[in-house]
Formats: sequence, structure tokens, C-alpha cells
Amino acid sequence: MVANISLPRLALTPGEPAGVGPELAIRLAIHLAGQSQVKPVAAEIAVFADPDLLQQRADQLNLAIKIREYQPGTAAIPGTLDVVPVQTICSVTPGQPDPANASYVLETLNRAGQACLEKEFSALITGPVQKSVINDAGIAFSGHTEFLAKLCNVDKTVMLLSDGDLRVALATTHLPLRDVAAAITTASLRRSLEILHADLQRYFGLVKPRILVLGLNPHAGEGGHLGREEIEIITPVLNELREQGWQLSGPVPADTAFTQTARSRYDAVLAMYHDQGLPVLKAGGFGHTVNITLGLPIIRTSVDHGTALDIAAQGCADPGSLLCAIDTAISMSQAAI
Amino acid sequence: MVANISLPRLALTPGEPAGVGPELAIRLAIHLAGQSQVKPVAAEIAVFADPDLLQQRADQLNLAIKIREYQPGTAAIPGTLDVVPVQTICSVTPGQPDPANASYVLETLNRAGQACLEKEFSALITGPVQKSVINDAGIAFSGHTEFLAKLCNVDKTVMLLSDGDLRVALATTHLPLRDVAAAITTASLRRSLEILHADLQRYFGLVKPRILVLGLNPHAGEGGHLGREEIEIITPVLNELREQGWQLSGPVPADTAFTQTARSRYDAVLAMYHDQGLPVLKAGGFGHTVNITLGLPIIRTSVDHGTALDIAAQGCADPGSLLCAIDTAISMSQAAI
Repeated sequence: MVANISLPRLALTPGEPAGVGPELAIRLAIHLAGQSQVKPVAAEIAVFADPDLLQQRADQLNLAIKIREYQPGTAAIPGTLDVVPVQTICSVTPGQPDPANASYVLETLNRAGQACLEKEFSALITGPVQKSVINDAGIAFSGHTEFLAKLCNVDKTVMLLSDGDLRVALATTHLPLRDVAAAITTASLRRSLEILHADLQRYFGLVKPRILVLGLNPHAGEGGHLGREEIEIITPVLNELREQGWQLSGPVPADTAFTQTARSRYDAVLAMYHDQGLPVLKAGGFGHTVNITLGLPIIRTSVDHGTALDIAAQGCADPGSLLCAIDTAISMSQAAI
Repeated sequence: MVANISLPRLALTPGEPAGVGPELAIRLAIHLAGQSQVKPVAAEIAVFADPDLLQQRADQLNLAIKIREYQPGTAAIPGTLDVVPVQTICSVTPGQPDPANASYVLETLNRAGQACLEKEFSALITGPVQKSVINDAGIAFSGHTEFLAKLCNVDKTVMLLSDGDLRVALATTHLPLRDVAAAITTASLRRSLEILHADLQRYFGLVKPRILVLGLNPHAGEGGHLGREEIEIITPVLNELREQGWQLSGPVPADTAFTQTARSRYDAVLAMYHDQGLPVLKAGGFGHTVNITLGLPIIRTSVDHGTALDIAAQGCADPGSLLCAIDTAISMSQAAI
């Protein structure tokens, strides 16, 4: 078999070693081996992780895979994981994250992210990390997104979640609810829309993306009776951007924005905050939604679930969300060429 | 035909006369006439409205119905609307609400609500009103719920929405987002849960209702990293009520609370605010969700939509949500006996 050098090369970080991440990488290799009998694997995937950890986990689970060191341009072999080796600091007990391995987790991200920046890979796919354990190690870490923004020297990103049908972007992400209203400013909202608009064009093949913007307040403020941010901030920003010919609707009430009829009218929704936009998406699509970071100079997709410590190394981890994250990364890579 | 005095008697207010409400009442009569060929109508329904307005609207729409004055205990006749006459103040132009008729709208509510309080009717079903028009008439009115709470001399109610499958109650309702966090207090949350718990038992036949409570903050505060209301307010209230043997779960993150797996574990969700709980419900069920006011001494259900001025008297109003509101009122009336 000859390597197909036009295949996208993807960097995968399985995340917290005591969680389901290592099993997901192993199940990915098995899944792709099964699928390759039907159609060729559509990407070269390099796993940034400790090869010994992966081998141990595969042995524990009685899953037969081979592990070899990743070499660019070498054809993938079904059932073999291509690994860029990063050593764990201490031994790993499934279900019990150890702060001593926090620097390992960050090093996998650091190396994979750097390799994407240097164009060795066309996209980064991340597994789940355990934020609190990294913090317990004395390292300030508020999430993948912020870490990658810093690595890429970017001051603003936009979180977009997709289940393949519905796309929901967030104007604010992981803020206490009482801080949300103050975080919606003219400048931040304009920047969020600029990033969303540009990346929908670049990565999703939408020449004139149709974006629906939600109000901040219930009933989108009901003409100012239930809050004035729609009048003072959101509508002026939308009007300004409409003058550039953008297709923007809103601000509309969140509660009726996600009906099937409404969905057919837009390519993406911009929700003002986390719990306004994500419950609908995950109600229908949990397990096959993908978390995408827009605004970075690299493509980054992620699974939609956490480390699932309670089922780590028990043989029941479902790689569905990881496969969706990979499919999305491939499709975004191809659109961006 | 002899009147069946065991049938629930329902009071219906069509709401704003320039909106879709009158057409919905007319279509209800037609629907029930059609249905009565299959099974007898399961309630006596009295419409609190101007009979001339209803007749005019029926004529405009070429819908053949008869109108007579409601007499308690008189058997319903398929295709005939039983009306408790309330006179409009001025003539009605569909699509153009007139503040001069605001007192008419409130008088229908007042009389229907009073009749429920006096046990002449077992439930009140309300059509949509145009809040801003009532305010334009110089009358302070923040919504049906508040109006009825005052009429019934009740200081606290809970809004519950249901699509027959999922039930979502709200700890706060029509508040600007920036005021939500401060409105979630130990006392208000405890009272909301007491009302929800009691009325799920009384009206929904749930002896030990299972209630899932959402966190206020994203990820339910993530152990205090994203807000402290879960630790300082929500969890203590839940623990206090659990000591009474209540089946309460939470606080849990909103974004994963509505998956099919999660739904099977509770009878109702308590969301902390409007746009956290309602988008999921309406995404799936808009047009057949019902708005129920808990905590009143009377049963009150409502349609889930507004006055739809743009389609008033155009012959395309869908009575689906009204029929759901009536079915729910009947079922609640029967459970409460």
C-alpha cells in the first residue's frame, strides 16, 4: 500500500490518562480497521500520548491493536495506532487522575497544537481533560480553548457546537450566570460575529452564511420591558454588520428559535450564553455532537463529553463523539484547502 | 340529550380580540363537533367573550357555528359555542389591537377567574393577550399569571410547561437575565419546589414526584469554579427538602439534563430561568405545549403561543395548542377530584 499524501493529517490528544480517552483512541483504531474493509481510512491520524499507557489499556481491555511510532506519510495500517510518544510522569490508575500527570496532559496538547501551527497536521482533535486535576497540580488552566488561544497567540475564540444538523455558537462560554450580561458588549459581540461569519465561510463552505442571533433576555427583552441589551447592544451590532451585506436575523427569543421550521432558516445560531444554546443541541445529539473552536489559526474539534472517570477502562466507552469530531475535522480541513 | 353533570366545566378566555383568539374558539367548536361523532365531548366549555365579535369573526372566515348563551348543566351541542357574554368596548379590527378594549380583555379574565374561584368551573383556559396594548391603556399588567395570582390572593406561583412528555417548571420567569441570579434565594427556591411538589401530587397523580433541579451556572457551577449559588443556595435547599423524603436530584448541568436517558429518570425539571428550560421544550413541542400555572387555588392552563396578529382572521390559526391546554385542564380537573 502506498501512502496517499493528499489525505488530511490529524493530531489527536486523548486527554486525561485516567479517563476514557486512552480507550477511545484504541476503539478508534479498531473502528477504522473495521471500516477500512468497506472504504479506505480518510485520514492519517497521529495520537499524541504515552505508547506504554495505550498498550497497557489495550491489554486490560483485551483489545488487540498494534502501536507504532508515527512517521509522516507512512500509510496507515488498519488496527495499528500511530503514536507521537509523550511520556507520562507517573503510572496511571484508571478512574483516579493524578495531579502529577497534569504536565503530561498539557505537554500532549502543547506538542500537538504546535505541530498543527507548523502545518504538520491540518487539524487537532482533543479528548477530554480533567480541569480540576490540572488546577490541583498548581497550574492555572481554564480549559482547552483558552490554552490553545494562548498557544496560538489569539485573544478571542468562539465555541461552536454542531450535531451535523444544528450549529450553535456561543457569545460567552464558561462564566457564572451573574456575570453574563456584563460580558455582552458591543465590541465582544461584534468580534464573536466576525469570527463566526469568517469561519462558517472558510470551513463550512457557506458563501453567505445565515446567522440567527438570540436575545440575551427572555422574549428577547420584549421591547425593553424585560431588559435593554437587545436595544442598546445587540440590535446596533447586527445593523452595523448588515450594512456589510451579511445575512443576520435577530435578536429573537431563544425559546422559539429551535423549532424545525425556524432551523430551516439559518446555518448557525449565536446564543448569548452556555445554557441558552446547549441544552437543545445536547438533548437531541448528545454523544454525536462536536465542539469546534473558531477563531484559531488551526482547526480544532473536540468530543462533547467529559473524562467519564466512573467508566474508565471498563470496556464500555463509546467512541461515537470522537468519530464525529474526526469527521468534522476532515470536512473542515478539506473545505479550507 | 341529557346533560352529564359529571363532565368538567371549563372557562375559556380567548384573550386579545384583534388576535387569533376568537378564531381559535370558533375552530375549537368545529373541532369538537367533528370529534363528537367519534366520542362524546369530555367537557362543558364556556367561552367568556363578546358573542357579536365571535359571530362576526365566524362570518368573516366562512365558518359555520352557532352561538348561544352559556347555561350551566345544559348539554353541549356539537358546533355550538356556549358563551358567557362580555361586551367589547369598541369595534375590533383584526391585527390591530386597540387599547380601548384592554378593559374588555381584563374583564373576561376577571369574570372567568372569579367563576373558577366560586367553583362554577373546574379550570380556566386562557388564550393569548397582548401585554403591551394593556399597558398602553395605562393599566399595569405584567401577564396572566400575575393577574390571576392577585385575583386569587396568592403571592407566589410557579410556571410549568408541558408537552405531554417533558415537564419543565421555572424558578424565575420574566426577568431580565442580569436580575436572575439575585432572584434565586433560599426562600424563593424552597417555595417554588414546595408548590411544584404539591401540585405534581395533586394534579398529575404522582404520589412521590421525581424532580430534577438544574444548576444556575454552566456545568452547575463546576464545584464553585463557575459560580457559587449551587453550593450556597441550591444544594442546601435540596438537602433540607430531601429530609422530608422528597425525591430530588441535582443541581445538575442544564446542557445534559434533557437527553432521552436523563428524561426517563424524572417527572419534572425545575429550571432556574426562562431560557434555560424552555428552548428544549419548545424545540420539540411548539404548538402542542401547554403553560400551566401552579400554586393558584384554581386550575389554569394556557396556549403556548402569542396573539399572532399577523395572521389574525386569515383562516389559518391552528387550535392545536388550545386543544392541548383543554385536554390538560380536563386531566388535571379529574385528578384533583
